[in-house]
Amino acid sequence: MLTVDLNGDVGESFGVYKVGNDRLLMKEVTSVNIACGYHAGDHNTMAQTVKMAAEQGLEIGAHPGYQDLIGFGRRSIQTTPEDIYHMIVYQVSSLKGFCQLFQVPLKHVKPHGALYNEAAINREVADAIAQAVVDCDSSLILYGLAGSELIEAGQAKNLKVANEVFADRTYQGNGTLTPRHFGEKAIIQDEEVAVAQVLTMLKESKVLSIDGKWVPISADTVCIHGDNDEAVQFGRRLRHELEQEGITLAPVSSNS
Amino acid sequence: MLTVDLNGDVGESFGVYKVGNDRLLMKEVTSVNIACGYHAGDHNTMAQTVKMAAEQGLEIGAHPGYQDLIGFGRRSIQTTPEDIYHMIVYQVSSLKGFCQLFQVPLKHVKPHGALYNEAAINREVADAIAQAVVDCDSSLILYGLAGSELIEAGQAKNLKVANEVFADRTYQGNGTLTPRHFGEKAIIQDEEVAVAQVLTMLKESKVLSIDGKWVPISADTVCIHGDNDEAVQFGRRLRHELEQEGITLAPVSSNS
Amino acid sequence: MLTVDLNGDVGESFGVYKVGNDRLLMKEVTSVNIACGYHAGDHNTMAQTVKMAAEQGLEIGAHPGYQDLIGFGRRSIQTTPEDIYHMIVYQVSSLKGFCQLFQVPLKHVKPHGALYNEAAINREVADAIAQAVVDCDSSLILYGLAGSELIEAGQAKNLKVANEVFADRTYQGNGTLTPRHFGEKAIIQDEEVAVAQVLTMLKESKVLSIDGKWVPISADTVCIHGDNDEAVQFGRRLRHELEQEGITLAPVSSNS
Amino acid sequence: MLTVDLNGDVGESFGVYKVGNDRLLMKEVTSVNIACGYHAGDHNTMAQTVKMAAEQGLEIGAHPGYQDLIGFGRRSIQTTPEDIYHMIVYQVSSLKGFCQLFQVPLKHVKPHGALYNEAAINREVADAIAQAVVDCDSSLILYGLAGSELIEAGQAKNLKVANEVFADRTYQGNGTLTPRHFGEKAIIQDEEVAVAQVLTMLKESKVLSIDGKWVPISADTVCIHGDNDEAVQFGRRLRHELEQEGITLAPVSSNS
Repeated sequence: MLTVDLNGDVGESFGVYKVGNDRLLMKEVTSVNIACGYHAGDHNTMAQTVKMAAEQGLEIGAHPGYQDLIGFGRRSIQTTPEDIYHMIVYQVSSLKGFCQLFQVPLKHVKPHGALYNEAAINREVADAIAQAVVDCDSSLILYGLAGSELIEAGQAKNLKVANEVFADRTYQGNGTLTPRHFGEKAIIQDEEVAVAQVLTMLKESKVLSIDGKWVPISADTVCIHGDNDEAVQFGRRLRHELEQEGITLAPVSSNS
Repeated sequence: MLTVDLNGDVGESFGVYKVGNDRLLMKEVTSVNIACGYHAGDHNTMAQTVKMAAEQGLEIGAHPGYQDLIGFGRRSIQTTPEDIYHMIVYQVSSLKGFCQLFQVPLKHVKPHGALYNEAAINREVADAIAQAVVDCDSSLILYGLAGSELIEAGQAKNLKVANEVFADRTYQGNGTLTPRHFGEKAIIQDEEVAVAQVLTMLKESKVLSIDGKWVPISADTVCIHGDNDEAVQFGRRLRHELEQEGITLAPVSSNS
Repeated sequence: MLTVDLNGDVGESFGVYKVGNDRLLMKEVTSVNIACGYHAGDHNTMAQTVKMAAEQGLEIGAHPGYQDLIGFGRRSIQTTPEDIYHMIVYQVSSLKGFCQLFQVPLKHVKPHGALYNEAAINREVADAIAQAVVDCDSSLILYGLAGSELIEAGQAKNLKVANEVFADRTYQGNGTLTPRHFGEKAIIQDEEVAVAQVLTMLKESKVLSIDGKWVPISADTVCIHGDNDEAVQFGRRLRHELEQEGITLAPVSSNS
Repeated sequence: MLTVDLNGDVGESFGVYKVGNDRLLMKEVTSVNIACGYHAGDHNTMAQTVKMAAEQGLEIGAHPGYQDLIGFGRRSIQTTPEDIYHMIVYQVSSLKGFCQLFQVPLKHVKPHGALYNEAAINREVADAIAQAVVDCDSSLILYGLAGSELIEAGQAKNLKVANEVFADRTYQGNGTLTPRHFGEKAIIQDEEVAVAQVLTMLKESKVLSIDGKWVPISADTVCIHGDNDEAVQFGRRLRHELEQEGITLAPVSSNS
């Protein structure tokens, strides 16, 4: 039986600044990634978000990023693997504290933004992140771009990993995402096509790249966006269509 | 047999900015309070400091403060008890993560600077801190100003507490420290007098206030400063004199 | 002929975080106060906001606050007059730089949030702010709570001042605002009443306090909020009603 | 007659954190570059540093960097030219405000750390910086690595530029500095050699690269470090030796 996780990034508000539709998004996903105060989030937001996710029975992961609030963690910052290792330990541990408050387990780690992208292609960065996760708690699941360096780094350290795929992004011949700066080619606007891409990834473990090649891909979890109402509505549709196809929606930890 | 803990604030460097003589100070104390990235410290400094303290066999505590790097946590920031509760959870949890890396236990929590002072006189703040400590780990020891609201808040929640005293500060008739803005009267410059004050506090559980009254005081731990070489040297002298008097220097947790 | 300024706080977004309806609000006011990167705003937001205000022909002021992004400058931070003096110089100067880019003059300074409230009642803080404004540019207009210490401090230093009044807040017998924590009594919900209060302040230079006394008040500028659509709509209504009464809406600088 | 400027980076303390020997370094240089609160410095430090430099009669420049206190501006942050343009305007303008307080002119701008290095090789970044300087004040002198993209960008916009050279660093065949990660080859330890290199650069407008080639170089200003006592002492020696050779030490603005 096919099973897949739907994950959403939440808890990215900061002080009076609010972003995302966490309450709505949480209705559509099976796991959430919570910001830890570096690229977004703060101690109050973390507490509220963990509480809300716990109430919804969602699996909770840490969503650590570069310490760059003004850039929302989307800008690469040149640094050392040791620095990355420590920043992961710091952020994961702080979120673990809030999980403990609400008596829910921390289940996974998914790096954010520029750190996620860097870890997908840079093995040193990927290794630093994976080692930090191992050292924090070797039972944590590491989420990374499907087939990327981060997934390999996690596997090499015997972590359980989750290959993440995207419904609304196109893929290149080498299995990586088409960069956003490629413009229209990078994004799938048509919801039908986006749903079909996910179904093919799940049922046939492959994706049609922009160069017209079928590329093998694993899909353990699909990222659902919560930036605006449309994004959440697409999540609802995707969820519905997956269920129609008999695919079970469940967190990664249940799938073993 | 009389026993007392000597504690020192460490890990207060930030990025390229270095403060304190952590390596020297660690030779004179039995426990350390490590900054957690809010008023001082960063993820790299925390890792290095926990490692160093673990190597020295010192007991490790978290030293959480207001999120105010530019003010070094010495300025009171008007906020809610809920905010304080969450900021303690965040900071204590992050340090706990580094303790786990180096396989040493986190043993206590001592608030820093303006938060320490506020908690000494404001029961709402004291309660928020004590509750956060309970919820993080009810076996943690709460350090606070001897006889203060923070000590009472901790006791009311069944936490083990450590009454902290100061060698180089004078006390008022009500048992609180003479505020620094009182000038010369607030500080004990003469090392003889400072040592004598600690000995009397330990052996007779009292202190002579600036108004000439003997005030009862408990002394479980003495704060040793590491700001400069002189401060560390005074720590060494105090340590020596206490040992000469047959007083055992040992962390609070050993004293029960 | 009666003249009054309507002012709005703008440019309080930060990085990806957006707040306020600056574009709409700018249609209803005659002057704007732009955040300077301490409590809110950043260098990109400042540039965009100055540009937009310049295009609308609005008078531009600096809106400096405490360096406290997480608290949005709404929390009092215990500090020295010297620190406040320097933080005003820094923020006003940085905004002046952006005004120069778009070849518009900086016309006024209005402190934000907790700094505004502190300056209303604490003469030392008020003096530090007023002196900083004088030293930055003695032709700048200082906005402060009508009749407050800040207004007096500005006048004592020969600054042109603007007494700010609020449509939707009640006043106490001593002419100060009823604190928000008084609950319902502090806020005027009824738009009719709010409009009437402003008209009486403008035409008769007095306000009816919650204790039922008529208190003399000067009203050079009225604060219009831009937090949500309703707030902006009320601004539009107030503007309309003032114009109906033959009151000229114009920036403070034109009124001399 | 040969003339050269000696410049030093100052004002890089932050809150209680102190770095550098500003007071000593200011005795050896003819111009200073003052941090503006992004990579280092704060509003109080800026005021004190401008005051001290004004008292010493030194020419004052802004030393803007990436907004990265934890990395001290030494880490490259991926961002847009527009963002860089605005961050330069913000920082230069804030320092200009402090110069005005002490009635001294702002004379130049020298980017810091990773931003300096990026501007030396990336024309887009160099152009953004140069344009910001032009738009802040087209009479400001732009300091950059001798012969770099930043110098060319400044010249293309008709700014007066200052080619900066280093006494203690080696050069490559293409006229750029040998990167620090080359290890020993990158640094000149021998003070005799360092002094000789500067003299040859000044008198013969050339430098011997590590590949053994003579490379043409312009030297308008030499960077003097103030990190520790040794660095300042070397500055004193260099100053002395230059004067012995009849070279005039004077700020760049006097040399035209």
